[in-house]
Amino acid sequence: MDWGTELWDQYDILDKHTQSGLDLVDKYMKFVKERTDIEQNYAKQLRNLTKKYSPKRGSKEEQECRFSNHQAFLDILNEMNDYAGQRELIAENMMINICVELNKYLQELKQERKMHLSEAKKSQQSLEAMYKQLDNSKKRFEREWREAEKAAQYADKTDQDLNATKADVEKAKQQAHLRTHIAEDCKNDYAVQLQKYNKEQSQFYFTDMPQIFNKLQDMDERRIKKMAQGYILFAETERHVMPIIGKCLEGMTRAGTNVNARNDSMVLIEQHKSGFERPGDLDFEDYSQGINRASSDS
Amino acid sequence: MDWGTELWDQYDILDKHTQSGLDLVDKYMKFVKERTDIEQNYAKQLRNLTKKYSPKRGSKEEQECRFSNHQAFLDILNEMNDYAGQRELIAENMMINICVELNKYLQELKQERKMHLSEAKKSQQSLEAMYKQLDNSKKRFEREWREAEKAAQYADKTDQDLNATKADVEKAKQQAHLRTHIAEDCKNDYAVQLQKYNKEQSQFYFTDMPQIFNKLQDMDERRIKKMAQGYILFAETERHVMPIIGKCLEGMTRAGTNVNARNDSMVLIEQHKSGFERPGDLDFEDYSQGINRASSDS
Repeated sequence: MDWGTELWDQYDILDKHTQSGLDLVDKYMKFVKERTDIEQNYAKQLRNLTKKYSPKRGSKEEQECRFSNHQAFLDILNEMNDYAGQRELIAENMMINICVELNKYLQELKQERKMHLSEAKKSQQSLEAMYKQLDNSKKRFEREWREAEKAAQYADKTDQDLNATKADVEKAKQQAHLRTHIAEDCKNDYAVQLQKYNKEQSQFYFTDMPQIFNKLQDMDERRIKKMAQGYILFAETERHVMPIIGKCLEGMTRAGTNVNARNDSMVLIEQHKSGFERPGDLDFEDYSQGINRASSDS
Repeated sequence: MDWGTELWDQYDILDKHTQSGLDLVDKYMKFVKERTDIEQNYAKQLRNLTKKYSPKRGSKEEQECRFSNHQAFLDILNEMNDYAGQRELIAENMMINICVELNKYLQELKQERKMHLSEAKKSQQSLEAMYKQLDNSKKRFEREWREAEKAAQYADKTDQDLNATKADVEKAKQQAHLRTHIAEDCKNDYAVQLQKYNKEQSQFYFTDMPQIFNKLQDMDERRIKKMAQGYILFAETERHVMPIIGKCLEGMTRAGTNVNARNDSMVLIEQHKSGFERPGDLDFEDYSQGINRASSDS
């Protein structure tokens, strides 16, 4: 079962079908291209978000990173930045491994399809030209035999005409023989043309066109296999970075589990304790001592 | 080691530090909120992309899905739509489990912090008022003993004055005794106030303020633990949908591996073969038969 034998009379279908195949490649390429745009945009937004929330160098926020709960946020931001990088990698690899690759292949296929179709057209035109030649030859043969028939009838009529001279009869018979001879040449020519045409037609339907249609089928199957690879790469490209994205997520979780509340309280103490003792009791200031003495003296 | 004992004289630091802690909660919440916006936007773009490339019902594209290489593209689009749904789920879960949760907690913490700080302020003001009272009492004692001293000196002077009457001496002595008595009352009052103040001051520095500062420390450590949970949930929420995202990617790969080029060629045959035989040889049309006969008859 192949296109060459089963679809021998479906040139237009094969024309349309192979075009629709190339259109699908083109459509899938554009789809992947738009997906990469979305990925790039997504990654860019994640990067901007990271940048927006990252502390400026030497800022108060940066100093607060001595506290684990501030440091953890910074760690998460850093992991997010790496995460964004992986999304960019997905976009880049989809672009290189699918879009660029398929585009190159598509151009080749377009050329190849055009070549096969024009070869088919050429064969078809050549057969049609040959048919026209055959038809002409057949018509000439028909016409010439009608003329020969007429000449023979005229010769018969002259032969039976009592008023005709012997010379008239001889001339008419000669004319009839000549015509018959010409007509027989035409018949031979027609027979030769017919044999040639039948050989060519058989070559066309049983060899040339099947070969071209099978080449189209082969081309289409190669296209489909290439597309299948492109389909598989779509998910594969993302799955490829999954372990690293997993590591980013692990890093974020670790940032959370590294937070130590008690320790952060201690860091604040280390940073700010004055070391002073708390105030003790105020002393009694006895203004009466001098006077008491004076009073007891009196 | 706790804030109550080590940072007893760092009220302003604790004020600023606990505020900075709440600011971090607020900042992290806003960060997560913006991340969910990015996720939602990303999911929406993926959904739009899917919709754009999905065949319309009853369209030529839909009919072409009998070919595995067209069907596979449709399968990928469907998996992408599910994929987008998972990204939306990430956004929704981050919103509910982190933003809403932390926001509620932040409001509670704000209230609690305000309460602790105002309690500390009140204790401080009460101690200051008591100090003012003690100071007044001390100054009165000082003043009254000066007066008593003067009265005693005047009584001595009158006693040794040869011109003074016995009545003058008696009056001056009585005045001196009265003054001394008043001053001694003031001294006792000062002593009582001092004892009261010292007790209060000790209560303030060794019990009340340490308790409040330790409550602030406890609050801050609870905040940090809650934030750590929020940090961990950030990656956890995404990791939670990873298996389903993995299934979407597997589905896409399967779509690719399901493509069968040979089979697609056969489907085209089934759909379009006419069943007609290829044209055989054209017959020789012998216009000369009738004439040959006529010719041979002659």
